[in-house]
Amino acid sequence: MSNDARAPVAVVVGAGDATGGAIAKRFARGGYTVCATRRSLDKLQPLLEEIRAAGGTAHGFPTDARKEEEVVAFFEQVEKDIGPVEVMVFNIGANVPSSILDETARKYFKIWEMACLGGFLNGREAAKRMVTRGKGTIIFTGATASLRGAANFAAFAGAKHALRALAQSMARELGPRGIHVAHTIIDGAIDTEFIRENFPERYALKSQDGILNPDHIAENYWMLHSQPRDAWTHELDLRPYMEKF
Amino acid sequence: MSNDARAPVAVVVGAGDATGGAIAKRFARGGYTVCATRRSLDKLQPLLEEIRAAGGTAHGFPTDARKEEEVVAFFEQVEKDIGPVEVMVFNIGANVPSSILDETARKYFKIWEMACLGGFLNGREAAKRMVTRGKGTIIFTGATASLRGAANFAAFAGAKHALRALAQSMARELGPRGIHVAHTIIDGAIDTEFIRENFPERYALKSQDGILNPDHIAENYWMLHSQPRDAWTHELDLRPYMEKF
Amino acid sequence: MSNDARAPVAVVVGAGDATGGAIAKRFARGGYTVCATRRSLDKLQPLLEEIRAAGGTAHGFPTDARKEEEVVAFFEQVEKDIGPVEVMVFNIGANVPSSILDETARKYFKIWEMACLGGFLNGREAAKRMVTRGKGTIIFTGATASLRGAANFAAFAGAKHALRALAQSMARELGPRGIHVAHTIIDGAIDTEFIRENFPERYALKSQDGILNPDHIAENYWMLHSQPRDAWTHELDLRPYMEKF
Amino acid sequence: MSNDARAPVAVVVGAGDATGGAIAKRFARGGYTVCATRRSLDKLQPLLEEIRAAGGTAHGFPTDARKEEEVVAFFEQVEKDIGPVEVMVFNIGANVPSSILDETARKYFKIWEMACLGGFLNGREAAKRMVTRGKGTIIFTGATASLRGAANFAAFAGAKHALRALAQSMARELGPRGIHVAHTIIDGAIDTEFIRENFPERYALKSQDGILNPDHIAENYWMLHSQPRDAWTHELDLRPYMEKF
Repeated sequence: MSNDARAPVAVVVGAGDATGGAIAKRFARGGYTVCATRRSLDKLQPLLEEIRAAGGTAHGFPTDARKEEEVVAFFEQVEKDIGPVEVMVFNIGANVPSSILDETARKYFKIWEMACLGGFLNGREAAKRMVTRGKGTIIFTGATASLRGAANFAAFAGAKHALRALAQSMARELGPRGIHVAHTIIDGAIDTEFIRENFPERYALKSQDGILNPDHIAENYWMLHSQPRDAWTHELDLRPYMEKF
Repeated sequence: MSNDARAPVAVVVGAGDATGGAIAKRFARGGYTVCATRRSLDKLQPLLEEIRAAGGTAHGFPTDARKEEEVVAFFEQVEKDIGPVEVMVFNIGANVPSSILDETARKYFKIWEMACLGGFLNGREAAKRMVTRGKGTIIFTGATASLRGAANFAAFAGAKHALRALAQSMARELGPRGIHVAHTIIDGAIDTEFIRENFPERYALKSQDGILNPDHIAENYWMLHSQPRDAWTHELDLRPYMEKF
Repeated sequence: MSNDARAPVAVVVGAGDATGGAIAKRFARGGYTVCATRRSLDKLQPLLEEIRAAGGTAHGFPTDARKEEEVVAFFEQVEKDIGPVEVMVFNIGANVPSSILDETARKYFKIWEMACLGGFLNGREAAKRMVTRGKGTIIFTGATASLRGAANFAAFAGAKHALRALAQSMARELGPRGIHVAHTIIDGAIDTEFIRENFPERYALKSQDGILNPDHIAENYWMLHSQPRDAWTHELDLRPYMEKF
Repeated sequence: MSNDARAPVAVVVGAGDATGGAIAKRFARGGYTVCATRRSLDKLQPLLEEIRAAGGTAHGFPTDARKEEEVVAFFEQVEKDIGPVEVMVFNIGANVPSSILDETARKYFKIWEMACLGGFLNGREAAKRMVTRGKGTIIFTGATASLRGAANFAAFAGAKHALRALAQSMARELGPRGIHVAHTIIDGAIDTEFIRENFPERYALKSQDGILNPDHIAENYWMLHSQPRDAWTHELDLRPYMEKF
């Protein structure tokens, strides 16, 4: 166990405007120092400022989640300069639908690299440090495509299936060592700019609670982290009450 | 929507000494009037007294969960005399392992009647009332056997699979009407008298948090009930960190 | 192992006009003496005559698959008077959709009794005899509802889930003893009178091979039975090429 | 539909000594011109000679299944010089277990590239040609790790999960266009040199039929290809009768 006097760190990989950002804020509110990554440091600033304005502590990193050296260096720096990583949330998706007949190797690879390899790298680096302290929480964000393939979704479903296999494999190896590895299934549209602009009819369901509120997703991640180790959840589905499934 | 001024009711079917009792206490603490059923009213008394001593409100009923008329009458009485049913937790199991070669039709039926038919009856009666008010939570307690069959477990796995199918069918029909129907997978030994007496080696894992604490299970049921309707969980697994799965 | 000089028997429980009948004919053609059951012996006659006209051997029994004594007596009689049971196919369904709010305990039970209890009774009786000879094949016919619940299908999905749990439990117990227990998932409309009369649009897909041909289903059952024991299939899905899934 | 007078081609990607080779021989025996790929053309020779000695037709290609240009060129050459591809079997695995704590990005990627990207490339190229003729069969070989993760198997399980997602996505997109896409779950040890040398105790089960005979696996692939389109199987599990599952 650690004698580290510094506040524990919650790493949020893919701290975008919606889900990732909400998760970062939730853990900051819970007393964690947030270390958020996103490809653009500029785009991270509003989140960091919001957390700080609310009295929290947050640092931003433009780490490329797909680059082994960058991810390793990021975790080394965090543990050295900021605090012990107690939480790692991997929240990067990457879905560009395509008929299998038109899909390119390059795009098929890119989607896997983004949505799966990044999860492996960040998961491994977090796990390496957590096992030395016998505790920690690692959460991977999944989707409906984590559970089954669909026409035009071979690349995304493949990456998401692989990420789920990673979560299960890590949970089985690391659970007995005190690390809680969980996977979520977000099954429904989330209240984001992307949905608002591209699926206005879907977005209109917001008035009926028909799309997921990022803050409510974040609350569930906090809940997973808070579960005592005799009663851990390893897969959590979340969907609006009116969602077909 | 209801103008009922009475406190909402949480029905706990199968309020035994461990999980069911802990769930009853959790909802009582949350402000619900608990209506607990168990075959023996005598055995219910300590639970009722504990809830009342803590400032809660609880009523006991010796309803046979397998008898349609008894279940119907029970719900009628509760709604008439006590309050609107907002929560129904079905928590009855019934596992007597047997080789398929030795299993009797009587026992195969009894296990289904207890673990599944009772769930159907209580689930239906609760749902009938909840749909008139557009809200409510129904939780069915499942187990590892809900997910796959195993040698010597044909009867129990069958009943548990059927209960899960009930939960899924109800969730898909009633979700859009505002009723949250969830199913749990309790995968591991629970801290009960039964485990202590029959599986002492397993029970010894308690000191390492290797068996489930009923209060922690109950907290998750409360969490499910508290989820806002834009982010509902329909299946929740719970197991100790050191459990093989 | 058996020195029984009599031809081996294939029991087909629920030998209706479509799938069950086709299976009976396939096993008769493969050299098995068919013992077919159906509630109405009259309705069985055309099938028996067709098998005999093609040079096969077939016997009909009006056994009620849900009655333990009848099923036990049926298997005793077959083994005594006709031959050793080497194959048992359980092919009874029973689907009457209903909202959960309107479902009765009686119907919920009837559907389970028909689609699941009958499978248990016939499966057990077949297994008891097969284990003494160290070989045999038991196949349970499943459906999409075996895999997930759906609105208005709580009873049928429950019975089918339970039947699948039975198949899995028996496969795991009896496989190492040489008994091949398999479960099928028939996912699509079958070419039957029922579909023709009630779903004419669906039936019209027949001209494009859009509904399942019972003879093709039967061929797969024969294939399962023919698999050498080092390479057994335990669950086989069958659906038309154009079926959504 | 094609007026191609040439014999149809069965492409076998990963035609190793055991399963892949047996599949190649089975399709050759069924009248298909076999186009087999393997990294070493030398190692392919005995298989090609065996097929030819039995009166079949076979060609070998040292195509690297992971290289987009090589795979594209291979399919172009086959269709131009040999015949229309009617069957494509992808049979490459790549399992090197490792603790998640020690796994490298390079190896994690290599396993995915071999076991999944190669499947995508060969599947896509086969599909592109098959859709123009409205028929064809594509089979991906899976394993237990296709269904769940396990400690020390994050990389292999990830690749296999992704391959399964590919199979499902392709099946759903291409099924209605007449292409049968199937996935197998080979759950058990196969009778190979690798098992003989590395798991002698496991291999000793061969005398009891406790390991899978590659010819029996191949027979099932032929069966899948032979299914009429009104009754297709999309996932086929195969395991020895004595295998735990």
